Amino acid sequence: MNEEKKPIQMHPEPQFAPPSVEEIQGRIARVQTRMEKEKIDCYVTFSPDNIFYLTNFANLIHERPFILVVPKSGVPRFLVPKLEVPHAKNRVIGDIEIVSYFEFPAPAGETWIDNLHPLLSDGTRFGVESVCPLQIYEAIPKERVQTDIIDDLRMIKSEYEVGRIAYACALATEAHNRILAQARPGLTLSEISSEINKMMMGQILSDYPSTNILATRLIVLFQPGSVSDDPHNYTNVNMAMEVGGPHVSIISAVINGSGAEVERTFFLGHVPEKAKRPFEVMLEARRVAFELAVPGNLMSEVDRRTKEVFRKSGYEEFILHRTGHGIGVTGHEAPFLAEGYERMIEPGMFFSIEPGVYLPGVGGFRHSDTVMITDNGNIMLTDGPIQIEELTFPTTV
Amino acid sequence: MNEEKKPIQMHPEPQFAPPSVEEIQGRIARVQTRMEKEKIDCYVTFSPDNIFYLTNFANLIHERPFILVVPKSGVPRFLVPKLEVPHAKNRVIGDIEIVSYFEFPAPAGETWIDNLHPLLSDGTRFGVESVCPLQIYEAIPKERVQTDIIDDLRMIKSEYEVGRIAYACALATEAHNRILAQARPGLTLSEISSEINKMMMGQILSDYPSTNILATRLIVLFQPGSVSDDPHNYTNVNMAMEVGGPHVSIISAVINGSGAEVERTFFLGHVPEKAKRPFEVMLEARRVAFELAVPGNLMSEVDRRTKEVFRKSGYEEFILHRTGHGIGVTGHEAPFLAEGYERMIEPGMFFSIEPGVYLPGVGGFRHSDTVMITDNGNIMLTDGPIQIEELTFPTTV
Repeated sequence: MNEEKKPIQMHPEPQFAPPSVEEIQGRIARVQTRMEKEKIDCYVTFSPDNIFYLTNFANLIHERPFILVVPKSGVPRFLVPKLEVPHAKNRVIGDIEIVSYFEFPAPAGETWIDNLHPLLSDGTRFGVESVCPLQIYEAIPKERVQTDIIDDLRMIKSEYEVGRIAYACALATEAHNRILAQARPGLTLSEISSEINKMMMGQILSDYPSTNILATRLIVLFQPGSVSDDPHNYTNVNMAMEVGGPHVSIISAVINGSGAEVERTFFLGHVPEKAKRPFEVMLEARRVAFELAVPGNLMSEVDRRTKEVFRKSGYEEFILHRTGHGIGVTGHEAPFLAEGYERMIEPGMFFSIEPGVYLPGVGGFRHSDTVMITDNGNIMLTDGPIQIEELTFPTTV
Repeated sequence: MNEEKKPIQMHPEPQFAPPSVEEIQGRIARVQTRMEKEKIDCYVTFSPDNIFYLTNFANLIHERPFILVVPKSGVPRFLVPKLEVPHAKNRVIGDIEIVSYFEFPAPAGETWIDNLHPLLSDGTRFGVESVCPLQIYEAIPKERVQTDIIDDLRMIKSEYEVGRIAYACALATEAHNRILAQARPGLTLSEISSEINKMMMGQILSDYPSTNILATRLIVLFQPGSVSDDPHNYTNVNMAMEVGGPHVSIISAVINGSGAEVERTFFLGHVPEKAKRPFEVMLEARRVAFELAVPGNLMSEVDRRTKEVFRKSGYEEFILHRTGHGIGVTGHEAPFLAEGYERMIEPGMFFSIEPGVYLPGVGGFRHSDTVMITDNGNIMLTDGPIQIEELTFPTTV
């Protein structure tokens, strides 16, 4: 699918510097090649992640639109509010024309729509993203084609991107190991989250003082055994680690524009009898997912056969989510290891591999790692203990 | 415009508890009344802020859609991923039917679109928001009408909402005063931001331990004089306060689902000669904005006449933004005090009032406060020193 780009194969060297002009130009050229195939004159992107990927400029979505227009050839034009022009100039890499509008709202003749129209004058067939907001969609002339070209191209990483993700994974692994090293009954979510956040942010800013904070989001969490059967339950930031388990620890990070995820199921003092079998079934599902997450396999099939392990063990009703998701400039993106997602795995893709099972009254069982697909198989870029013995810690540190 | 709801007038009592069932039911009833007027059978909302307003459930946008469908009468239906059902049940207030889909992506027949369609079966004329993503828009049958009913209704606050914003404003003011109290040359952005964030989060969690972290976002910033002429320049988190100024301090917060903003222009040791006139011009613009931000005035007119002060002083080219924005369940939303925004100010609205001017090589000049429109005028819910003498601090604390 992404025949335009050669994937890497070796074990990556971590790095955190911004992309080179050549790296950014290569991305834009690949978008334009794809546009040509799809007979699109002009591609309009609003997604902050896609804009970041093509420009190195990160913004948060708010009422003042930022819109990047990629013509079929030549230089992309980036529409930003006047207030953000110096910020855009500071971050944008390579040859991108910055065009501004005064403000949102603005008087007739000076609005973002008035300033968008001239940028679209070259084309008659426009590509728009599936996340394009209706008000931007309506501002684009017909013919409009819904196509996620940038999201598609983001799936296969360059050697440079692999290095960036490797850096994020190394830091996420170090932070996650610190959670495990301190685990003890009574340690609260707010205590550990605040400490590990501070450690990570300190490291990031010391490694690269110009880190883009708008492209940096750190999630540091755990769930104790009493709530881990409900994997999105974080309503009480004062909840504490408990004797027993299963606890689930979570680092899900975007570090200066590169994602990483690592999670473990762990116990304090002892493993409750009821938790032993689901833990082993989860490990077996994880083993199957790693075995199948290799080039040439269908993503839907990886998910189906991984879930088969849970189904055969009588846990079908306790499956709450897919086997994994893509990782790139965000921590959570396409492609997906999910039934219904009929795409082939290719070298250069990254996934979380995180089959999980959630037994009410027993708890949640899930390890997650960030995994790179290579020509021959896959490599785990995060790390941590895996077996139940390694993940059962004493109740005093 | 919002004739369905009676605005409050008295000075509000701060509160932080979640809305009552009656409060939520009142909001839904007002949406349905408006739908009737616009002849809409079914209103589809995707905006997390609008969903939070109608349900008390907050989520972050990611690839798994959350969609609330409001019928012209009866109970709204809330489509969420299966994984989030317990979370939704934990937060949702009042009578809202929760419907789930298994996962994104999912096999044909089980996708979010398959599960959305039955929720739309009652209607033939659908209301959709201007921020509705194209993929959700395309999943809604025709006829589709773009209308921002919930955003419109959010503009006028109930007595309960006023109390929530008053709480957020009191905490923002306290935090902001701490920045000013500690101001000294050499204090870095990362030091003060980390300390004040921690103080605010500690207070919030002690006041209300079940605070919704997904509806809580704290921005604690300042700019020293050397960069304050570029008001969105925060590329260096190690930048430090300096002798002189103008510095600009910023607290922009959403606290458990209520916004607040307070900002001041301040100096350390002395006021540079070149900074004196722009400061006084900014104060005069601010005075005009407060005088005009009263019921019955057009928002565009408030902005135009406020900017007139800058224009008459020869600062027209140094205006970078509008006079103010609305505040409610977010810190930045409609309505806007902006030229081109032809809407009347009404009692019960909230605005930031923050006219600013940015002189290259001199610095940025802006105070911001959160202001409630009353029947007779307006009340500032944040607080802080205003005059240049009060805002010139010694260089040793």
